[in-house]
Amino acid sequence: MLDVAKKAGVSKATVSRVLNNKDIVKPDLIKRVYDAIDATGYRPNVFAQNLATQTSKFIGLVISNDLFDGPYFSSLMHHAAKNCDEINHQLVMTDGKHSKAEEKKAINLLIDMHCAGIIIYPTYLNDEELSEIIRSTSIPVIVINREMTALPQCAVRIDHYQSSVCMMEHLIQQGHRDIAIIRGPENSNAARQRMKAYIDTLLEHHIMMHPKLITVGDWTIESGYAAANQLLLMQQKFTAVLASNDDMALGAIKAFQMQGIKLPEDISIAGFDDSNMCRFLSPSLSSVQVPMCKIIEKAILLILNKQDMAAKIETNGILKIRESIIKI
Amino acid sequence: MLDVAKKAGVSKATVSRVLNNKDIVKPDLIKRVYDAIDATGYRPNVFAQNLATQTSKFIGLVISNDLFDGPYFSSLMHHAAKNCDEINHQLVMTDGKHSKAEEKKAINLLIDMHCAGIIIYPTYLNDEELSEIIRSTSIPVIVINREMTALPQCAVRIDHYQSSVCMMEHLIQQGHRDIAIIRGPENSNAARQRMKAYIDTLLEHHIMMHPKLITVGDWTIESGYAAANQLLLMQQKFTAVLASNDDMALGAIKAFQMQGIKLPEDISIAGFDDSNMCRFLSPSLSSVQVPMCKIIEKAILLILNKQDMAAKIETNGILKIRESIIKI
Repeated sequence: MLDVAKKAGVSKATVSRVLNNKDIVKPDLIKRVYDAIDATGYRPNVFAQNLATQTSKFIGLVISNDLFDGPYFSSLMHHAAKNCDEINHQLVMTDGKHSKAEEKKAINLLIDMHCAGIIIYPTYLNDEELSEIIRSTSIPVIVINREMTALPQCAVRIDHYQSSVCMMEHLIQQGHRDIAIIRGPENSNAARQRMKAYIDTLLEHHIMMHPKLITVGDWTIESGYAAANQLLLMQQKFTAVLASNDDMALGAIKAFQMQGIKLPEDISIAGFDDSNMCRFLSPSLSSVQVPMCKIIEKAILLILNKQDMAAKIETNGILKIRESIIKI
Repeated sequence: MLDVAKKAGVSKATVSRVLNNKDIVKPDLIKRVYDAIDATGYRPNVFAQNLATQTSKFIGLVISNDLFDGPYFSSLMHHAAKNCDEINHQLVMTDGKHSKAEEKKAINLLIDMHCAGIIIYPTYLNDEELSEIIRSTSIPVIVINREMTALPQCAVRIDHYQSSVCMMEHLIQQGHRDIAIIRGPENSNAARQRMKAYIDTLLEHHIMMHPKLITVGDWTIESGYAAANQLLLMQQKFTAVLASNDDMALGAIKAFQMQGIKLPEDISIAGFDDSNMCRFLSPSLSSVQVPMCKIIEKAILLILNKQDMAAKIETNGILKIRESIIKI
């Protein structure tokens, strides 16, 4: 910057004023500064500029790295980058790691970058802590997959509960009464909501819940495989399995097929997320589509302060019924 | 910062010197500044600090958003975040988008953040352009999946060519002569290397190459499905298919099974990447494991200037032979 100022024969302050579009600089000086920039090959530091102007063309995204490796979040990251790109912004992702403090640090980093907006898919911070962060910054912050009772205008919800109720209702309509579940881990809001839907729908239909038919996975294919083998050992009859995501359903399908069980004739199975592979499995997997594209679109409209347009976007889950469920 | 200075009864410059650990401040002033920081709740902007100190605890990663959505890159991003976390650094990811200029901009952004190091999985910039960027910055930049002839010390290669040769050799050893390929797109270095291995290995074994047995996909499951159907229409006999990634292999498996073709009895099939699902498909899918964890580990060791340790890490692909290939 000093080289540019010397070359243009002006002060460093003048160079700075030109770069930040302050309109108090004479036109001939502006030309001299830009000529000097060309001559020296100077590239202004984008963060120095952001600090000066307090704005940027960045949109931040915070997710915990444990979640990166799977179809649900890779789809979320893909759509976030694509949607930012479409409005000529740059997506900057940081890692919420493994604790409240680290998740907060990842958010603060994006605040310090003067992002135009921040999208959080929180794992550790609770609604109250998130609200406190949102209130302490002038940057729009949108939280995905939380209620945010105190700040509902900052939340884009995914209705895991209602979507799972729909899938359970479908299984019951098809004549299934003995339905096993492979649920997700207790620390996941999505897993808790999907589990609650399982329990409530059974209750609603006066169907006895068997503790032996409840298994827990950690979202991975391996854990679905292990859970299905555990179910087979339980000596408790079941005709259908509700897996809380597609990867665990894939693991369960393999475990059943390895035992010579015919799918869907002997056991019906449902996943959740409607990942790309569902249509291509054998049998093709019934699932609930989480409209990730619309969820991100809605979050970005809220960041851009276009609440009316955002309100029109529905983000409910959609049942995708395929070969893996039959009527009994 | 001004509030802190006022509260502590010192100048802004003193607050700055304390925050940046300059040892020219009297101990009692340091205490007064930190007390004032506690009292005011002041949080220094991390980028202002980075600009001042020219260092940070960030490691940058640039990938194009087209690639985010699939098992290969979600595994790469997961391992990158995990490895950064383990050395107490924060991974910051930016999107290389769709052109040389945008890819360069994404890299510059990370340079401006004063990242401790930057990892690039390039799509658009060529080796020469990457070398120019690397030479123009003092920040260590590591390029994954390129030769970088001029700067081999900055490259962590994945040997797509040799790995694919091994898989082709295995197919030929199992008696296959009529081998079809579902290759990846022309603009991908990995796809070109894997294709070259297919051609060279056939030549090496004096096996005639049939243009009708060469199909192209875009890495997606859908494109593998379409390519397999195209192969079936060609009226050219084949007993094995080499798919250039697992997702395309999954699509092909589905297409063959829909036509009543028995796998692996009628057609053997191989994928590439050894994604999590391979073991759980029916038949389980033979593939080449790309050791993403080791690739990232090596890149980070190079960033940390630990060349000796990095040199010991082998990143060759490993054949994973499963049910999907049989001897004929």
